[in-house]
Amino acid sequence: MTDAHTKGTAIGIGVGPGDPELMTLKGARILAGVKVIAYPAPETGDSLARRIAAPHLPDHAEEIVIRMPLSVDRFPVEGVYDRAAEQISAHLDAGRDVAILCEGDPFFYGSFMYLYARLAEDWPVEVVPGVSSLTACAAVSRKALAAQSDVLTVLPGVLPDEELRARLEASNAAAIIKVGRHLPRITALLSKMGLDDRAEYIEYATMDGERHTPLSALDEAHAPYFSMILIHRRGAAWA
Amino acid sequence: MTDAHTKGTAIGIGVGPGDPELMTLKGARILAGVKVIAYPAPETGDSLARRIAAPHLPDHAEEIVIRMPLSVDRFPVEGVYDRAAEQISAHLDAGRDVAILCEGDPFFYGSFMYLYARLAEDWPVEVVPGVSSLTACAAVSRKALAAQSDVLTVLPGVLPDEELRARLEASNAAAIIKVGRHLPRITALLSKMGLDDRAEYIEYATMDGERHTPLSALDEAHAPYFSMILIHRRGAAWA
Repeated sequence: MTDAHTKGTAIGIGVGPGDPELMTLKGARILAGVKVIAYPAPETGDSLARRIAAPHLPDHAEEIVIRMPLSVDRFPVEGVYDRAAEQISAHLDAGRDVAILCEGDPFFYGSFMYLYARLAEDWPVEVVPGVSSLTACAAVSRKALAAQSDVLTVLPGVLPDEELRARLEASNAAAIIKVGRHLPRITALLSKMGLDDRAEYIEYATMDGERHTPLSALDEAHAPYFSMILIHRRGAAWA
Repeated sequence: MTDAHTKGTAIGIGVGPGDPELMTLKGARILAGVKVIAYPAPETGDSLARRIAAPHLPDHAEEIVIRMPLSVDRFPVEGVYDRAAEQISAHLDAGRDVAILCEGDPFFYGSFMYLYARLAEDWPVEVVPGVSSLTACAAVSRKALAAQSDVLTVLPGVLPDEELRARLEASNAAAIIKVGRHLPRITALLSKMGLDDRAEYIEYATMDGERHTPLSALDEAHAPYFSMILIHRRGAAWA
């Protein structure tokens, strides 16, 4: 006897940094062929991942919206992933593939890993890498991220000043990601370190509202979540 | 009077890590419309960037092959870039766009920056980001690179042991790139640091010959240039 139902595959697709045309050919091909998609969304409002993928979505796909609570508590978030994994796995058991949309790349500071952890042992899972915000911001700022023997450090903006300082001092090139509400503190730190003239601020890279400016010319106190500061220290191998 | 010749645009296109289907839709669209392409190649033999882009190239494009000498001296390399920039700019002056193919992403440890530096002041230059080897290797190894407040450090394999050790000790997650001939030294270092069971070795990600294995299970002494070691230290925020 053969199985009447072969299990479906969960496919994490990096949809890229914002411009729908920066999705990969592979991501677009897979998306066009699935009947079920799942994607993260804020507690209210639209999903960025879905917006990026919109031109490539099949008609009449069933959609699983994974609404992330604003709470920073661990348990509600775990519960959201548990429920999403249950919904997704029900489709997989029925033999339907499910495309899981991920902003940027699935494994670069994304939430896909939490679904991956819940699904990969019992169901087939594939990962399609995507263009990350890191290289998209470099393209927008028109400066290389790193070259040759440069050390490149990716630093979440939430890190405290002392840690940021020590890590910036030890890097040839650095990207501070998820700047958001930390902008004033980070700007002050970079200024104190004499690095503000080596820092480029980028927001909404490759999206509507894209902007980049030397950090020293920025006069806002708040940055959107999708913002990044790229820093090239003097002495980088290729400067 | 209007210019009879509008200048062409040099377009650096990240062709992705190896699988031609991991090129972006934008990269493929632009490539299909150009009449001139340029790409790096070894002193003898085929260009990997061209091989990746091959399914997307237009018929009868003029090709500028940028052959990189094996010499590690600075001057011959500078001369190669100078000559390539001259060839490219002649097309730009004649109003023809030139697509410059870049493995992975143009600004992530690539050679595109050297052409960019020679062209961007006098001719229009665009940069189309691509999927980098970093996220492709994470997808192949089926482990997240980094999440939440993790610090992610990218370390060229050429760095001396002491520097690698200090930087690995300070990172939640790290990628050692361009492993190549440094493999035995790096393996010994990671073993001494007790990190070899937290390290994954990946070669030829998304290409023919793709392979990944825990570093501790690897018995070769040499790695190809296109190899990477991803390390997730105990204590990573999401482990």
